[in-house]
Amino acid sequence: MTDLLTAALNPSSIAVIGASENPHKIGGRPIAYMQRMGYQGRLYPINPSRRELQGLACYAALADLPEVPEMAIVIVAGDQAVAAVEDCAARGVRCAVVIASGFGETGAQGRAQQDHMRDVARAAGMRLIGPNTQGLANFGTGAIASFSTLFTEMPPADGPVAVVSQSGGMAAMAYGLLRQRGLGVRHVHATGNEADVRVADLAWAVAQDPEVKLLLLYLEHIANPALLAATAAHARQRGLPIVAVKAGRTAGGAQAASSHTGALANEDRVVEAFLRRHGIWRARDPHALALAAPGYLQGWRPAGRRLVIVSNSGASCVMGADAAEQHGLSIATLSEATRRELAARLPGFATTTNPIDITAALLSNSGLFSEVLPVLAQDDAADMVFIHIPVSGAGYDVERFARDTAAFARASGKPVAVAAWQESVAQVFRAAGVATYANEDEALGALAQVAGHTALLREPLPVLPTSAPAMLPAGEGLLNEADSLALLAAHGVPVVAHRLCRSADEARAAFAELGGPVAVKACSRDVPHKSEHGLVALNLQDADAVAAAFTQQWSRLAAMGAAQEGVLVARMQHGRHEAMVGAHIDPQFGPVVAVGDGGKYVEAMRDVALLVPPFAHGEVVQALRGLRIAPLLAGTRGDPALDVQALADIAVRVGGLISAGAGRIAAIDLNPVMLGPAGQGAVVVDALVDLGGAGTRPAPGPRS
Amino acid sequence: MTDLLTAALNPSSIAVIGASENPHKIGGRPIAYMQRMGYQGRLYPINPSRRELQGLACYAALADLPEVPEMAIVIVAGDQAVAAVEDCAARGVRCAVVIASGFGETGAQGRAQQDHMRDVARAAGMRLIGPNTQGLANFGTGAIASFSTLFTEMPPADGPVAVVSQSGGMAAMAYGLLRQRGLGVRHVHATGNEADVRVADLAWAVAQDPEVKLLLLYLEHIANPALLAATAAHARQRGLPIVAVKAGRTAGGAQAASSHTGALANEDRVVEAFLRRHGIWRARDPHALALAAPGYLQGWRPAGRRLVIVSNSGASCVMGADAAEQHGLSIATLSEATRRELAARLPGFATTTNPIDITAALLSNSGLFSEVLPVLAQDDAADMVFIHIPVSGAGYDVERFARDTAAFARASGKPVAVAAWQESVAQVFRAAGVATYANEDEALGALAQVAGHTALLREPLPVLPTSAPAMLPAGEGLLNEADSLALLAAHGVPVVAHRLCRSADEARAAFAELGGPVAVKACSRDVPHKSEHGLVALNLQDADAVAAAFTQQWSRLAAMGAAQEGVLVARMQHGRHEAMVGAHIDPQFGPVVAVGDGGKYVEAMRDVALLVPPFAHGEVVQALRGLRIAPLLAGTRGDPALDVQALADIAVRVGGLISAGAGRIAAIDLNPVMLGPAGQGAVVVDALVDLGGAGTRPAPGPRS
Repeated sequence: MTDLLTAALNPSSIAVIGASENPHKIGGRPIAYMQRMGYQGRLYPINPSRRELQGLACYAALADLPEVPEMAIVIVAGDQAVAAVEDCAARGVRCAVVIASGFGETGAQGRAQQDHMRDVARAAGMRLIGPNTQGLANFGTGAIASFSTLFTEMPPADGPVAVVSQSGGMAAMAYGLLRQRGLGVRHVHATGNEADVRVADLAWAVAQDPEVKLLLLYLEHIANPALLAATAAHARQRGLPIVAVKAGRTAGGAQAASSHTGALANEDRVVEAFLRRHGIWRARDPHALALAAPGYLQGWRPAGRRLVIVSNSGASCVMGADAAEQHGLSIATLSEATRRELAARLPGFATTTNPIDITAALLSNSGLFSEVLPVLAQDDAADMVFIHIPVSGAGYDVERFARDTAAFARASGKPVAVAAWQESVAQVFRAAGVATYANEDEALGALAQVAGHTALLREPLPVLPTSAPAMLPAGEGLLNEADSLALLAAHGVPVVAHRLCRSADEARAAFAELGGPVAVKACSRDVPHKSEHGLVALNLQDADAVAAAFTQQWSRLAAMGAAQEGVLVARMQHGRHEAMVGAHIDPQFGPVVAVGDGGKYVEAMRDVALLVPPFAHGEVVQALRGLRIAPLLAGTRGDPALDVQALADIAVRVGGLISAGAGRIAAIDLNPVMLGPAGQGAVVVDALVDLGGAGTRPAPGPRS
Repeated sequence: MTDLLTAALNPSSIAVIGASENPHKIGGRPIAYMQRMGYQGRLYPINPSRRELQGLACYAALADLPEVPEMAIVIVAGDQAVAAVEDCAARGVRCAVVIASGFGETGAQGRAQQDHMRDVARAAGMRLIGPNTQGLANFGTGAIASFSTLFTEMPPADGPVAVVSQSGGMAAMAYGLLRQRGLGVRHVHATGNEADVRVADLAWAVAQDPEVKLLLLYLEHIANPALLAATAAHARQRGLPIVAVKAGRTAGGAQAASSHTGALANEDRVVEAFLRRHGIWRARDPHALALAAPGYLQGWRPAGRRLVIVSNSGASCVMGADAAEQHGLSIATLSEATRRELAARLPGFATTTNPIDITAALLSNSGLFSEVLPVLAQDDAADMVFIHIPVSGAGYDVERFARDTAAFARASGKPVAVAAWQESVAQVFRAAGVATYANEDEALGALAQVAGHTALLREPLPVLPTSAPAMLPAGEGLLNEADSLALLAAHGVPVVAHRLCRSADEARAAFAELGGPVAVKACSRDVPHKSEHGLVALNLQDADAVAAAFTQQWSRLAAMGAAQEGVLVARMQHGRHEAMVGAHIDPQFGPVVAVGDGGKYVEAMRDVALLVPPFAHGEVVQALRGLRIAPLLAGTRGDPALDVQALADIAVRVGGLISAGAGRIAAIDLNPVMLGPAGQGAVVVDALVDLGGAGTRPAPGPRS
């Protein structure tokens, strides 16, 4: 990995294969940029028709250089590009950046050429960036292996932000938006077709750069989640926040992504859970990346989500309160002392409850900000402050407002965001070092993002069980219900009282032993969907009925040619609500646990939370609060609160079980889980475990 | 109303009471503005200490003017303002604009002064704007009775947009955002404390101005919905779209609004339904007002919501598809002919399915837009086009892109929105007359808004029944269940088969007559919550049990001291799903109907749609599609689709009943409504009608 860091991000020498004298052409731009940025390494233009190029000695071929360059930028196209990569690999170049397009993105033939380049590179131990990439740019060293026109449009400035993107367009856009806000950007890297090097590889490399304080990613496909997870763990350790845009959130987006990159779509809700698990904040688009950046860089680390709103317009106070609620921020309740202090400093018609309307009196009293803000600094109820100035400009002492605001932010250490739609006003605040936005939605979005991300990174990282799961039967495919229940019970999951019977007499005895009404269900790994075949009898009240059900089901199994593994006699288990816990192995992300509303309509209603193990009990409880059935779980209309603790406990155990048995367990489906009132537990009534392999996994949903 | 139009918006003479020589002071600014804007009426500064002011003759008092002015702007404060209003009223001024603050917004004393000014004005037939208002500005006539500093910051230009706002800050902000986009604004009016004239009054007046093509409103409280509805009806007739921001959407916002204006909060979901009913589009904030304005003014009237996305970045195509889905737009499926045409014109590595990725080849072939766009114009599958240019600037022929785009928009008549975050690029498109946005979220938000608003305004307006409801019993308070069911049945609502019995023998006979299992429920207007008192017996299978239940409930009623109005014997009615239909009279908006998921948890789950009568059957069906139970209604997991038509029919009938009986019926609550498979109807099982007045309305929810 350190190899990639050196060779791709900080090479000591660079050849440009297909160099151009014209600094506005793709082959000329990287050379012009590197000369302008003061690249300190050795730069070798290669162009057989020139001796000299942009003031540098020019060579006819790689073979003519005085040394083997550490990096080669391949501008030439088609077969020439392939030949150049072969040449680089043969000569010991360590990293080739293939700018040329027309490969994997064009169809089978281009794909084959691309695969060939990758194979050649890998065989020689050379890393390949691209093809079809905008390239790499490190403004810390001046190594600009990129043709982005935006570095001309918006002059670069080295700084604390790094951008790594699959897409060159998004890399450039993120760079531009950050520079527009006056932020310094050190790394701007695009991976293009990702024949070899992917976003996670460069993210890992960039995360080693101690000057990087904020890492922004754009991905359409998470191809190597393990490396991304390792990068996130490293970044967390050194306090480097990572914010990612993962496009293809929707069905339409995923389809577009698949025609863009040809990659298989990640299941979006799993992506969401994966990123959350690893403390990576997911942003909607590159704009959101740029909007929150000033906050991260100013060291916003709010203790909570309680907001104070200050404005010189009452209407902005109202809309700010609306927007706060929509961003999940709460309006801080100020102390009596604070309100008295505010009342003493504000005109009589101002509002001293939060939101604080300092009114148009700001026009005549420019000191109102410096009067009001220090009062807030002393109130522990405020985690962050939002100032909205919808009317300002001529007649207002904006310089002073900005100075007072910046001083308050410094002194209090609290995050402060300002919204001012007038660019002339925003500029003054921005120059004073205040995070400034066009409107309240953007400002509160940034505050909410940093607050959410801070809280996410504060969560302790739970540890996975390391021992292999106990009692895991040999073989592949589906376990029957009895074996499934037994496996879960062995891992501490409460399951319904039941007996597996192989004769009518055993069934009678089981009924007597269990007492009360029972369910009778045929037990065969060949028939996961029992009720469809009339293999379930519910609520049987006497031994004769149980015996009759046994006999009927036993012979039906035989008639179906299904394995007669037994008939389950189980106590009728009642609960207040039917919940579900499921788990499966995602092909990209590994174990994923689902927990939420159960019953027949689990797929249609989709009211479940997804979690990537390992996760703590408290995380499940929090995730359940976000479900639509949350009011039912909390108790409503005289019904008691339900035992979410017990449900969370099952989810944690299932997460541990599928993780520890990841090689063997493909899926677990518990539905319904009968949920009782708080303190009275949760009981799994129906279970299906899939050991994968030859056995097929049935569609999720209830089966008995 | 025409009075207000003339006196407030187009006065022939204006006095400024408290005029100032200084054009930067509140008392000087309106005079300076009017002179600059070429106000053609007669302008009279009043200031006892001057003879001449800003080049105009100045007067000591209203009494000294050569005429009674049509309008007076009251700048002086406190008691002087009150005296000025009294003077104006006494002398026959037709409209007083009271800029001064320190009245209703400061407490009881200020409120009393404000009420006094209103009473004085009303007694004299004078209209009062404010107090505590930024004032009125008509750039069509140059009558600028406003002190907004923004008219200095951003030079005015007369044009097709009108802004009417409770808040001066929001009026100014909307003005500024529109002017920033280069749009002309004719009216900018703020109503302030609304002692007399409210937003709806001025909205009505402004809607009479034939030059106004787009009317934007900001409200924190809808005080006179009838006038707003009349304005909307007039505007719809003349094709004038109205877009409103109604702040106080959330609990926090409503609380802030109440401290800002002191007004009672409107129930936000009813506001939503009311605005929809009247074809007024609700925007989130003043930014959204401004974002969609260019589209309205260009005459966007898309036939549907099918979008084509074109970009020079594949990543933007992906994110555009994501954003489209989130805005409820669909990705148009282009015809084979279109795709062939596109393939012939685009480079091989471009994508010819929608979204269309024209790739970075745009850099070398500036004609790609003019190649691609006309192909789309011929495809009927496309209702609108979104072009995203995330990378451009130096090296790109932006002028040509903009020209080609504008030509396409003109020729095709289809809405076209462009996103370009680089202001230098956006400017070129804007100058060419193309609606241009900072990012895809804003662009697609604007397209989705105009598409939604267009569809809303295309819906035929249903007509309310005009006859009084039949069978409405005399009296007040709750009807018992039998009377409630009878009233509904009389209005065509299918209700459960039932008999009202007053003896055990009658109950036996009812059982025999109804056949099958029945429910037995005590019937007394005194006991709406029957099950809490053990007054419900379900699923009784024989006549003896029915007779016993009758006897038990009858005597229990007597023991409770409740009216013994009978005992209901009703057929046990099963359905696939428990739905609900409710209706009540909102204190501000009148009749409101709720329809959706029923059962015990109706309040906790809140999965119901609100509609303001009159509404058509199809509107209910559409609203039901937005509910979380929509998949269940549509049929899932082998279950049939449910009879939403029958449910919609009940909602329409209930809407007609409560509207026709608005004076008499306070609330109707039908829960559960047993919903069968499509074609098999819906049946009301439990009903409660409240005639209001002395009787109390029980909390919503099931009762039996």
